[in-house]
Amino acid sequence: MSDLDQLAINTIRLLAVDAVAKANSGHPGAPMGLAPAAHVLFQQMRFNPKDPAWLNRDRFVLSNGHACALLYSLLHLFGYDLGIEDLKQFRQLHSKTPGHPERGIPGVEVTTGPLGQGVGNAVGIAIAQKHVAAKFNKPQFSLIDGYTYCFFGDGCMMEGVASEAASLAGHLQLGNLICFYDDNHISIDGDTKFAFTEDVGKRLEAYGWHVITVKDANTDLAGIAAAIEEAKKVTDKPSCIRLVTTIGFGSLQAGTGSVHGSPLKPDDIIQVKKKFGFDPEKTFYVPKEVYELYAKTSKAGAAAEQEWQQLFAKYQQQYPELGEELARRLTDKLPQGWEKALPRYTPQDKALATRKLSEMVLTSISDIVPELIGGSADLTPSNLTRVSNAVDFQPPSLKIGDYSGRYIRFGVREHGMGAIMNGIAAFGSNLRPFGGTFLNFVSYAAGALRLAALSHHPVIWVATHDSIGLGEDGPTHQPIETLAHFRAIPNLMVWRPADGNEVSAAYYKSLSSEKTPSVIALSRQNLPQLEGSSIEKAAKGGYTLVSTDKPDVILVASGSEVSISVEAAKVLANKGIKANVVSIPDFFTFDRQPRDYQLSVLPNGVPSLSVEVMSTAGWSKYSHEQFGINTFGASGKAADIYKSFEFTPEGIADRAEKTYNFYKGHELLSPLNKAFESIHYF
Amino acid sequence: MSDLDQLAINTIRLLAVDAVAKANSGHPGAPMGLAPAAHVLFQQMRFNPKDPAWLNRDRFVLSNGHACALLYSLLHLFGYDLGIEDLKQFRQLHSKTPGHPERGIPGVEVTTGPLGQGVGNAVGIAIAQKHVAAKFNKPQFSLIDGYTYCFFGDGCMMEGVASEAASLAGHLQLGNLICFYDDNHISIDGDTKFAFTEDVGKRLEAYGWHVITVKDANTDLAGIAAAIEEAKKVTDKPSCIRLVTTIGFGSLQAGTGSVHGSPLKPDDIIQVKKKFGFDPEKTFYVPKEVYELYAKTSKAGAAAEQEWQQLFAKYQQQYPELGEELARRLTDKLPQGWEKALPRYTPQDKALATRKLSEMVLTSISDIVPELIGGSADLTPSNLTRVSNAVDFQPPSLKIGDYSGRYIRFGVREHGMGAIMNGIAAFGSNLRPFGGTFLNFVSYAAGALRLAALSHHPVIWVATHDSIGLGEDGPTHQPIETLAHFRAIPNLMVWRPADGNEVSAAYYKSLSSEKTPSVIALSRQNLPQLEGSSIEKAAKGGYTLVSTDKPDVILVASGSEVSISVEAAKVLANKGIKANVVSIPDFFTFDRQPRDYQLSVLPNGVPSLSVEVMSTAGWSKYSHEQFGINTFGASGKAADIYKSFEFTPEGIADRAEKTYNFYKGHELLSPLNKAFESIHYF
Repeated sequence: MSDLDQLAINTIRLLAVDAVAKANSGHPGAPMGLAPAAHVLFQQMRFNPKDPAWLNRDRFVLSNGHACALLYSLLHLFGYDLGIEDLKQFRQLHSKTPGHPERGIPGVEVTTGPLGQGVGNAVGIAIAQKHVAAKFNKPQFSLIDGYTYCFFGDGCMMEGVASEAASLAGHLQLGNLICFYDDNHISIDGDTKFAFTEDVGKRLEAYGWHVITVKDANTDLAGIAAAIEEAKKVTDKPSCIRLVTTIGFGSLQAGTGSVHGSPLKPDDIIQVKKKFGFDPEKTFYVPKEVYELYAKTSKAGAAAEQEWQQLFAKYQQQYPELGEELARRLTDKLPQGWEKALPRYTPQDKALATRKLSEMVLTSISDIVPELIGGSADLTPSNLTRVSNAVDFQPPSLKIGDYSGRYIRFGVREHGMGAIMNGIAAFGSNLRPFGGTFLNFVSYAAGALRLAALSHHPVIWVATHDSIGLGEDGPTHQPIETLAHFRAIPNLMVWRPADGNEVSAAYYKSLSSEKTPSVIALSRQNLPQLEGSSIEKAAKGGYTLVSTDKPDVILVASGSEVSISVEAAKVLANKGIKANVVSIPDFFTFDRQPRDYQLSVLPNGVPSLSVEVMSTAGWSKYSHEQFGINTFGASGKAADIYKSFEFTPEGIADRAEKTYNFYKGHELLSPLNKAFESIHYF
Repeated sequence: MSDLDQLAINTIRLLAVDAVAKANSGHPGAPMGLAPAAHVLFQQMRFNPKDPAWLNRDRFVLSNGHACALLYSLLHLFGYDLGIEDLKQFRQLHSKTPGHPERGIPGVEVTTGPLGQGVGNAVGIAIAQKHVAAKFNKPQFSLIDGYTYCFFGDGCMMEGVASEAASLAGHLQLGNLICFYDDNHISIDGDTKFAFTEDVGKRLEAYGWHVITVKDANTDLAGIAAAIEEAKKVTDKPSCIRLVTTIGFGSLQAGTGSVHGSPLKPDDIIQVKKKFGFDPEKTFYVPKEVYELYAKTSKAGAAAEQEWQQLFAKYQQQYPELGEELARRLTDKLPQGWEKALPRYTPQDKALATRKLSEMVLTSISDIVPELIGGSADLTPSNLTRVSNAVDFQPPSLKIGDYSGRYIRFGVREHGMGAIMNGIAAFGSNLRPFGGTFLNFVSYAAGALRLAALSHHPVIWVATHDSIGLGEDGPTHQPIETLAHFRAIPNLMVWRPADGNEVSAAYYKSLSSEKTPSVIALSRQNLPQLEGSSIEKAAKGGYTLVSTDKPDVILVASGSEVSISVEAAKVLANKGIKANVVSIPDFFTFDRQPRDYQLSVLPNGVPSLSVEVMSTAGWSKYSHEQFGINTFGASGKAADIYKSFEFTPEGIADRAEKTYNFYKGHELLSPLNKAFESIHYF
């Protein structure tokens, strides 16, 4: 190792030490242990800090996101828009250096911290890289040929989400994915011998990975470099470079858990700076030579991008159609007029399950929106996510698809699917991932779903079998709390369409979205095409479907309960009670309509009753009374279950009548009228 | 294979075929493929169908729960309280044979169906078996020496929850755990080659398992039996017997995905019955010889139990203290008066984080409640779940604990931890599992949490770092939707205590519970001991903490926002507005108080404002107005974040004043007054 290497590595280590010390909060240990690997890796990566969005950059994911002091230091040193003053604001409110890496910071590819997610994101990015390369690369035009790198630690490897994603990565033979396992034998509880004694390398090999060990990744820079070279040569397997490191290298507490998540003690900082030949009086010190060293990489990256831009210009001439398409995708805009392909329905069209109507949307738009890419967590024939002419995204050697394919067989790996979708969306070039499973099992992926919302990835969950209406599979499969949960996640659309037009609206809004993910909840059972629905109305998130003059009561419903509510309104009419029926397919979208419009749907003075076959939690936003199911479902024929829970026209009418009588003669405000506006709304 | 073996196996297969056909719904394929293994396994298992709760029975978990027609058929044939008429009611409403196995059905150990969970449950049961054995077994008194068996399929092996649990099982060297992998190469999407080409056996070996392959598990009964014998001899590793089977064995569709989740076609049923030598005209037919054959096992099991009861009677004489304790545990009752050990506080006691107060409860009751067993998902020093004299539950060979230990190092495996806790609770002998992680990461385990509630396992989640108050770790770690999600799960207590007395109340109610699990959300930051709190009041789920004569407004808060609300009430008093402060530490418990009591806390005529630093969803149950955070949190010092979101005495008082002014002069009902009572409340 040269003196300059040593100096640069220790600079990274000490920036992390100083940032954590100044914040009096954070994780110095992993940055100190991983600095050598980062030093070697980043110098041979291809990126342009002046254009962090350049498509053909190599990607780097820090799955052990708590080590972000490492990442922020690197981004600063390599010249990203992250100044030394930003490092001094580490973990302070509104800084550019929050406690875990957040997408949006220049150079941060994905938001990490929740363990295991980054591994899944990296698999997703590598999938996207392979796919876009297969779609656009041509002889002499290697437009996409980067690598996806990922650091992860023991914590990530213990998490199931990482296991799921790693298994799929092996199956998919993602040779462009190169991970680094920080094998430092320490987790928060102390030595990994307490809970984690498996053979990680052997496990990854079982998944189909190539595994290389660097026995002393504290000092053996040549070994790290050689491992990267070897990994790059293995083109038909993801690689894992196992780095045996010392957590907190240089600290008096090196190799112990105490250096994981707490600042180094002042004395320790002094001794480590002295040991590294730094002035202990100085903080956040960067030798000029280190800036100069890393500037070479950044300069080379800028030159590479310039070369690439010229190549792409030539490509656009030689392949005008593909060139235009990629250029469009780089603007993150869908093909103009794509939404005209969305199917529309009239009440004369036959009753269909909304999952089937979803398949019809996918069929209609699949060719028109070529950046749509996705699949199902092994429920393809149930989720109806695969259009008939789809090509599977598979390694060509398996002869069941190729990398240009857009249908991904995720396997029974919901959480992995969620993290992978986030990674695909993070890749750029407007890829629009979707993933199917039963609504109830989106919950398995709650960790990834929340990160999609937090990170602004507009992914789409195709969540079929959305209620007790799935019938015989019973309470283990029937969502109750699920929509309440998802609707409480900030920046998430949760669509539950009632018919074909509403399904089209759900896809219209979901695909139009640039920063908000969606869950589209779809029925297993057939639903009639409604009189009065339209894409335009449903695209407002909520609207009056059945309107009466001076209604006595308003039924507010979603999905499969809308048509039953329409029937309930007829039962009420026979009793002399005039009922409007309001369909609210998506809270998020309805919440963003002008107040006047909202109040036209839910006016003052009229009592309202929500109707949905799940938890009533959350529905008081739009109703005075709630009819729902605050217990678990049951196994049986769907019609029997609906009847048993009294979700019939008569059962609904009964509650509506009680609602009407309860509020009759009383002053009543719309539930939308509140004493103050929330200032904290995403 | 003898003719009788063949007959019995085909009887099982055809019962499953007939049950699925009659229901016109279900999964015949796996039962047909697994019948031989089930036939061999069940005959050598030890159980008494007349007393399914006998402690020293062998346990059987069907992790691929969709194959429940297999399990129900076995339970019927071996003489459990499940008649042939019950099999005919397969998947019908209110039957004893629902679409997936549900705990409560005689002979069903755990509720399965959501894939992967059963593997985790089995690991938990095996842990419990090891622990109770280590605690109570004595020379000549092998009171607990059973095995835990589990069937799982490809779907389970793809799920991260199973990976997590399997890795821990290997670490823990659970030789009493013997699993059977139904390697039939088929999942719902078709051939496993589409998504699942890893080497499962090698992966399990990497986890530390012993793996045995039975190459033809359709016919090689001797091979299956030999594999079980071999597995039993490996006492320091869990075993997996890989069964190469044919899904839908005997059907014309055998070996294809079409036999996985749909009934066999009528023609196919006729041919398979003929092929098996059965009368195609008969359905649900059981030859007398088959009943007789299996009755031998059941009879032997009944005799074994009788012997065991005699052994236990002797044990009680020879080891009166231990004997009494086990006898007590078998009644599922905690030691009398245990709750007297719960700490109580006065306002003079110092401010402490509720996670610290939780540690003090655990310290106080650990010796008094010896059936308390649990740990943390690698956050021990943060969750404060380990009392100082704890012994780790570890394989003795590692020399860091033993199987009598009650502190479990779960590793960073939240979902696995949840499924394992459910299994421990399912074991019986009143084991009361708890598991710690950050509140936000309980969401990783949503699948297991929901099953705890559905299955009535009174497990306890110790969920620390419960809000933006965790500070610097930032929005990736700060719950927003989390409590709204959990509160919407039926049969789940969600405690968020405000001080020491409320923490004691949370544990009091959680441990007193026999069928309702709990999440206890605990602060990272210090909170003052409140004037007016008590265990008794908090144990009602909600109570008036600060009471004024004829209040103008009520502040309704939980956890860390209660003390700030008390300060806000003082700010309001200075403005001439009289405010009550209500603390609602648990919705579930408060919902179950008498209506009169509830209305004394939240009376008609007084406007109320909820105050909680998370999603407002769900709070309208108890308040007219809601002050919360419907966006993501932020990284920074906790105090800065609270201030930024205006959760200060002044910020709360401002919203309270607006609430008061908004409703002044208007008729107002308590939010508890509703037009109709929900009839569907768990």
